[in-house]
Amino acid sequence: MPASNEKAAGAERSRPIGVFDSGIGGLTVVSALRALLPNESIFYLGDTARVPYGGKSAATVQRYSLEIASMLLEENAKTVVVACNTASAVALPQLTESVPVRVTGVILPGAQAAVAATRSGHVGVIGTRATIKSGAYERALRSLNPEIRVTARACPLLVPLIEEGWLEQPITDQIILKYVGPLVDEGIDTLVLGCTHYPLLRKAMARLLGDSITLVDSAQNCANAVRDLLVRENLRAPETDTGRLQVALTDQPDSFLRVAREALQLDVGEIQLREVSPHVHQ
Amino acid sequence: MPASNEKAAGAERSRPIGVFDSGIGGLTVVSALRALLPNESIFYLGDTARVPYGGKSAATVQRYSLEIASMLLEENAKTVVVACNTASAVALPQLTESVPVRVTGVILPGAQAAVAATRSGHVGVIGTRATIKSGAYERALRSLNPEIRVTARACPLLVPLIEEGWLEQPITDQIILKYVGPLVDEGIDTLVLGCTHYPLLRKAMARLLGDSITLVDSAQNCANAVRDLLVRENLRAPETDTGRLQVALTDQPDSFLRVAREALQLDVGEIQLREVSPHVHQ
Repeated sequence: MPASNEKAAGAERSRPIGVFDSGIGGLTVVSALRALLPNESIFYLGDTARVPYGGKSAATVQRYSLEIASMLLEENAKTVVVACNTASAVALPQLTESVPVRVTGVILPGAQAAVAATRSGHVGVIGTRATIKSGAYERALRSLNPEIRVTARACPLLVPLIEEGWLEQPITDQIILKYVGPLVDEGIDTLVLGCTHYPLLRKAMARLLGDSITLVDSAQNCANAVRDLLVRENLRAPETDTGRLQVALTDQPDSFLRVAREALQLDVGEIQLREVSPHVHQ
Repeated sequence: MPASNEKAAGAERSRPIGVFDSGIGGLTVVSALRALLPNESIFYLGDTARVPYGGKSAATVQRYSLEIASMLLEENAKTVVVACNTASAVALPQLTESVPVRVTGVILPGAQAAVAATRSGHVGVIGTRATIKSGAYERALRSLNPEIRVTARACPLLVPLIEEGWLEQPITDQIILKYVGPLVDEGIDTLVLGCTHYPLLRKAMARLLGDSITLVDSAQNCANAVRDLLVRENLRAPETDTGRLQVALTDQPDSFLRVAREALQLDVGEIQLREVSPHVHQ
C-alpha cells in the first residue's frame, strides 16, 4: 500500500467508536470497551432528555434511536454500538438498514454467551418492560439453539434502584430475589443481565444467587463483539493511538452519573450537552 | 344578557378543562376533578413518550410543558391544569406567561393545605428529584408562612414501585419508611405528597405513619383550586352538561394504565394517541 493510502487508512481507523444509550447505563459498555480496546477513541451519547426508553413503544424507541445514531455519524463514528438493550431489542433492524456503518447491539452477543454457558439448557433473561415484551432475547437464543428453554421477566424497579445508588442494600437484595427467585425455582442455570444498568448489580446478584447460576453480562459480551468486528473489518485503531473518551448527553447529568463513575471507575472528563436533531419522517 | 350571548357563554363554559402530566400519574388529579366537578368535561394529555419528567433538567421540562400545553389549547381547553409536580415546580411561570388561559399547578394548592394542617409548623415534602431540587414547595410554603420549617426529600423509587402496582407489599412499606422515617424523626407533623403518583400510596403511608402525621394529597387540593378558579371566572360548565373524559397519550399506554384505572376506579374510555408538536423556539 502506498504511504498516502496507508495514512488515509490510519485516519479512517482512528475515527471513534460511536456508542449510544437512552441514558447513563451504557457507560457499562464503555467501561468494558475501554478495558478491552485501550487504543480506541469512543464517543458516547446518552439520550438523558428522553430516558428511559424501557417503558416506551417500539415505534417511539425506533424514532429516538435513528435520531441519536445520526448524531453519532455527525461525530464521524466508524461503527455504531447500541449500548441499550431496549433499542437493541426493537430498533436494530431499522438502524442496520439506515446507518451506513456497521451496527452492533447487545442482544446477540449476550445470547451467544448464554448459549455457550448453559448446561441445563434453561436460560433466564431479565430486562426492562420493552426489552422483555419485544421477545428479542428469546428469538436470538432460539436462533442459536432451537432446543433452548427461556424464562424472561421484566424488572422495572432495578434501574431506579441502581440510579439511586442502592447497589448493596437489604431492600435491593429483596427486590432482586422477588424478581429472580421464581426464575431460579423454575430451573434456570444462566441469567442474562439484559439491561446495560444491571452489571452494576452483578456483585449483589452473584452473592444472592451463588455459583450455580452463571451471570451473563451484556456489556462485556457486547465489547467482545465490537472487538471482533473491528478486527474483521480492519478498523482497529493504530496501536500508537491513545484512545480518547468523549461523553455527550441530551440533558444535564444527574446524580446517577456520580454513581456510574464511581462504580465503573471511569474518567468521563467534561460532559458535553447536545440537542437532539429530530429525525425527519420520510 | 340576550339569549344569543347567553348561549355563547354556555358554549364557552362547556369547553373542556385541559389537564396534562408527564404520564399517567396525573389521572389522580382527574379522579379528584371528576368527583368534585361531574359536569365538567376533561381532556387529559399524558406525555408518555417522554415520561418521566422527574429526573430531567428545568430547561427540558419547560420546553416539554409548553409543547404539551399548546396541544391542550388546540383541544379548546378553557383552562390548563398542570397535574405534574415537576412541571408545576419548574415550568409554571413560563406556562402562565405563554398560555392565553388560566393555568393551575399542584404546588400552591398543596402548600396552602399543608400550612392549614400543620400544628408543629414543621412540614415534610416528598417528590421526584426535579421537584425537590427546584425548592418550589419550600418557596410556596414560606410565602404563605415565613416561620414554617420544611424538610424535603426526593424519593425516586416510589414512582416505579407504584407503576409496578406494588401498592401494598412489604418491600414498598420498607422503602416508604426508608424515605419518610427520617422526616418523621425530625419532627414533621404534615407530609405533602408532592408527586401526582403518590396518592396511590396514600393508604400504605397512612397505615405506616399513623394518625399523628397529616397527609396532604396534591391531587385533591389541586382539584379544589380548579373549582374555585372556575367559579371565580364564571367558567363552570352548565349543570345540564354531562362531563366527558377524554384521555390522550403521546405513546402507547403500558401496564400502569391498568394499575391507575383499577386503583382510581376511573373509566378512561378509548385512549387516543397524539404526536408531540415540537415547540418552536423564539
